Amino acid sequence: MKTEKSLASKPRIGVVGPGSCPQEISELAYRVGHGLAAAGAILICGGRGGVMEAAAKGAKEAGGITVGILPGDSPSEANPYIDIPIVTGLGNARNVINVLTSQAIIAVCGEYGTLSEIAFAMKCGIPIVGLNTWKLTAPNNRPIPMTHASTPEKAVRAALSMRVSCGVTQRPT
Amino acid sequence: MKTEKSLASKPRIGVVGPGSCPQEISELAYRVGHGLAAAGAILICGGRGGVMEAAAKGAKEAGGITVGILPGDSPSEANPYIDIPIVTGLGNARNVINVLTSQAIIAVCGEYGTLSEIAFAMKCGIPIVGLNTWKLTAPNNRPIPMTHASTPEKAVRAALSMRVSCGVTQRPT
Amino acid sequence: MKTEKSLASKPRIGVVGPGSCPQEISELAYRVGHGLAAAGAILICGGRGGVMEAAAKGAKEAGGITVGILPGDSPSEANPYIDIPIVTGLGNARNVINVLTSQAIIAVCGEYGTLSEIAFAMKCGIPIVGLNTWKLTAPNNRPIPMTHASTPEKAVRAALSMRVSCGVTQRPT
Amino acid sequence: MKTEKSLASKPRIGVVGPGSCPQEISELAYRVGHGLAAAGAILICGGRGGVMEAAAKGAKEAGGITVGILPGDSPSEANPYIDIPIVTGLGNARNVINVLTSQAIIAVCGEYGTLSEIAFAMKCGIPIVGLNTWKLTAPNNRPIPMTHASTPEKAVRAALSMRVSCGVTQRPT
Repeated sequence: MKTEKSLASKPRIGVVGPGSCPQEISELAYRVGHGLAAAGAILICGGRGGVMEAAAKGAKEAGGITVGILPGDSPSEANPYIDIPIVTGLGNARNVINVLTSQAIIAVCGEYGTLSEIAFAMKCGIPIVGLNTWKLTAPNNRPIPMTHASTPEKAVRAALSMRVSCGVTQRPT
Repeated sequence: MKTEKSLASKPRIGVVGPGSCPQEISELAYRVGHGLAAAGAILICGGRGGVMEAAAKGAKEAGGITVGILPGDSPSEANPYIDIPIVTGLGNARNVINVLTSQAIIAVCGEYGTLSEIAFAMKCGIPIVGLNTWKLTAPNNRPIPMTHASTPEKAVRAALSMRVSCGVTQRPT
Repeated sequence: MKTEKSLASKPRIGVVGPGSCPQEISELAYRVGHGLAAAGAILICGGRGGVMEAAAKGAKEAGGITVGILPGDSPSEANPYIDIPIVTGLGNARNVINVLTSQAIIAVCGEYGTLSEIAFAMKCGIPIVGLNTWKLTAPNNRPIPMTHASTPEKAVRAALSMRVSCGVTQRPT
Repeated sequence: MKTEKSLASKPRIGVVGPGSCPQEISELAYRVGHGLAAAGAILICGGRGGVMEAAAKGAKEAGGITVGILPGDSPSEANPYIDIPIVTGLGNARNVINVLTSQAIIAVCGEYGTLSEIAFAMKCGIPIVGLNTWKLTAPNNRPIPMTHASTPEKAVRAALSMRVSCGVTQRPT
């Protein structure tokens, strides 16, 4: 029972980014996923290609566990590195679930969907770390709660250190 | 029948912005709502306070029709200027519906929820006009499909002229 | 202003049923929609074909207003009798919104989607009236809060008389 | 890598039922969860109390893995036997995700939310096995694709044998 019990207390870290991307972005995402799994985290992602697939591949090659929260209505849409496909059928609205399920988010590069996830993370109080992603200027230049990292390794460390509580109830013994 | 028939072909324009805001932002939102209704548009919004309420008040005082797409599970959460409350129970995920239901969006000022709506609009190909709102810099500085307007009146004109097809099927006669 | 003001206080009644159906079911749905509009109600429905289209046609031909809460991501999916398409992009999850937006629901005939709406109505405390629809037996035969009507006219009367509060806040004068 | 790789190909079976229930129903749910985990399946459930908690407890005590798809916006709402909380913030609309994520569903007893999951399972073509749950009569008495089991063990066997494809793409080697 020891192993399973610890599954619930592993950090759950989200990696968000575009569904297709150039090779150099894939490499960043791979290193993010690898680093997260090496540190014992469960990878949460959107389950599809590009950044999501590269991060999941990195996580699997470091012996980690991967969850893919899919927009469509079939698990066959998951990339081959997803262990647990969550099939939502919700289209873009599933981006909210990626964010709420994670204790911190790393945004790698980014299209518009990624921007929506950055926005929801800030809205929901989930720490967000950017790696080569959107730069934002709020109305009236007020400060915004987003950290930028210069390398995948720094992004992993920042996300793990800033993450919110796992929220898990202790099991009766 | 003439009046009702034309309801389906009226432009549907979304106004998004924070649920509470200072007086000068409320005034901008009021003018946006008033201008949209005066031009014959149906106002789509999130149905709550702040920018949403001011825009809906403006629309009603110009004789318009207002739809409020609510995050909670009761119509009682709507502001008093909403004609048709749509009760979603979806929390922040309802932001996607605000966007998809509109033929163009005007973002007035903006917190994080507004940023998510700007992101979804760009993702879904719905034209987005900003008024005193977020400024965005995409990765690699690629251009982004967002227009900024300097006055409510210019925002209304831009949204109406850029709007996508209403998508409505002609009724058999 | 008088006309628009009263829009918010009109009853909002949902009609749910299959997206394709034989002629005799269409006729029942048409009479339901016509009766609701004649009584001053706004018709809420899923916006597509079959029962939804027949009810919307009936409502329009009685001079009513129709709202179609669509599962897909384009208003072009609405039937031609929808005045206000609400575009959710949520697939089947939009069934929850049909229910929450209505003060009472009439189920005409019914496939599985209709059954989900009957279930959500009971879950959310929205009165549900069945017309030639599912018959349900709960575990342990406990009573269930669903009314069956034998004619469209009786279904309309039952829904209007059982409807929950419109939940609308009075506008300041 | 061997262990993790096989995670993706384990059956994912949903257990649905009320969030609070009498002791004899809890015992049925516990035996369902235990049997599923003993057979190597991952338990998918709504993550809360009652049937969901009893099934998750059974699964954990048989060494299984549990996923809880939560309606609220915090993982703290999960029962203590959930390994991987999926936080949706969608309220009742999350019931669709429980269904789509599962290759077969077992309904134990049942309130209205359970009925909505039975309906969605039939709508989405996910096999559904009932254990002391709703009995349904479709309009015109047409046959419905739902199986009833008389014991937890028979329900587990039926769900495993009827389950649809896991939909998972083979990983490159």
